[in-house]
Amino acid sequence: MEINSGYINRLIEELERLPGIGNKSAQRMAYYIVSLPNERVEKLTSAIDNAKKHTHYCKECLTMTDSELCPVCADKQRDHKTIMVVENPRDLAAYEKTGKYRGVYHVLHGAISPMLGIGPADIRLKELITRLEDDVDEVIIATNASLEGETTAMYISKLIKPTGIKVTRIASGVPVGGDIEYIDEVTLLRALEGRVEL
Amino acid sequence: MEINSGYINRLIEELERLPGIGNKSAQRMAYYIVSLPNERVEKLTSAIDNAKKHTHYCKECLTMTDSELCPVCADKQRDHKTIMVVENPRDLAAYEKTGKYRGVYHVLHGAISPMLGIGPADIRLKELITRLEDDVDEVIIATNASLEGETTAMYISKLIKPTGIKVTRIASGVPVGGDIEYIDEVTLLRALEGRVEL
Repeated sequence: MEINSGYINRLIEELERLPGIGNKSAQRMAYYIVSLPNERVEKLTSAIDNAKKHTHYCKECLTMTDSELCPVCADKQRDHKTIMVVENPRDLAAYEKTGKYRGVYHVLHGAISPMLGIGPADIRLKELITRLEDDVDEVIIATNASLEGETTAMYISKLIKPTGIKVTRIASGVPVGGDIEYIDEVTLLRALEGRVEL
Repeated sequence: MEINSGYINRLIEELERLPGIGNKSAQRMAYYIVSLPNERVEKLTSAIDNAKKHTHYCKECLTMTDSELCPVCADKQRDHKTIMVVENPRDLAAYEKTGKYRGVYHVLHGAISPMLGIGPADIRLKELITRLEDDVDEVIIATNASLEGETTAMYISKLIKPTGIKVTRIASGVPVGGDIEYIDEVTLLRALEGRVEL
């Protein structure tokens, strides 16, 4: 017998469409939400509404922000001649957490994936090229170390090299604290190829 | 530099309060939500609002439903003299999916947990006892096979036995398809104790 109420089922369906949420998690979240006091539910829905309403792309780097320029692009102390290219705002946030990177960013909002039919025109590459008309010293490509990320890195590097701007790629290898015996072969080979002199 | 927009941070905080959602999942969901078209976001928030507004406890078994009685309790064909006691509506849904159980349910909305300070008065036990004043043949205790579930099962069985109503507990043992060598010792012992003649 279909036992969930129709309204709970609708909510479960909506939650399941979120990334990384399977049916079991969606059920757990849905039952939790309906058991919350009204004010907690209202906080959740207004957080969603407000985030949606007030968030848009940074005019410069295209990350998500609630002002015209994101805090990084608005910061005159940052090195605006060094642009790190990332796939999405979460990757930008991850690098920003290191607190060591002093340049600015460019968010592609995706990666080239022939398998998924995502081509160069489907990510924010045109905007990157436009930014290169300003005074830029280096473009650091920090797309993921996945097939899509590597394809995108190759494509961008070929695109930029003729301009004479330096193009670099973040290193790929054994993660810090990584146990050699548990690391996959491709990564081990990559680490070997990328070895540096001590 | 704190890079997420304030509104996105508020949303991440709210999402993190949901069960099973860590910071990384919350970030992923938040960025996904703000990148959705308006009508999709509206579908999500109205699904939340509607589920919250229209869902309440079934008058009989206390599961979540949008009518006075849940479909099981409203069904005259079901055996209303057999009550299966479960911890929450998700467990009820899981048993209902088997399609084989013909009795009705009682949802405790929790389990006794001295560690978390949850006592018998904090779960819906009083309502179960009241239901036993009607004509009931058997109470099947289907709380989890965890410390809290077992404690709750013991407590309920002691409470009901004096009334003369039959009290049973669902079997605990090796799950179907389970590989003996990967099953923990407690489960293996439980399976041995609960062995049945062939």
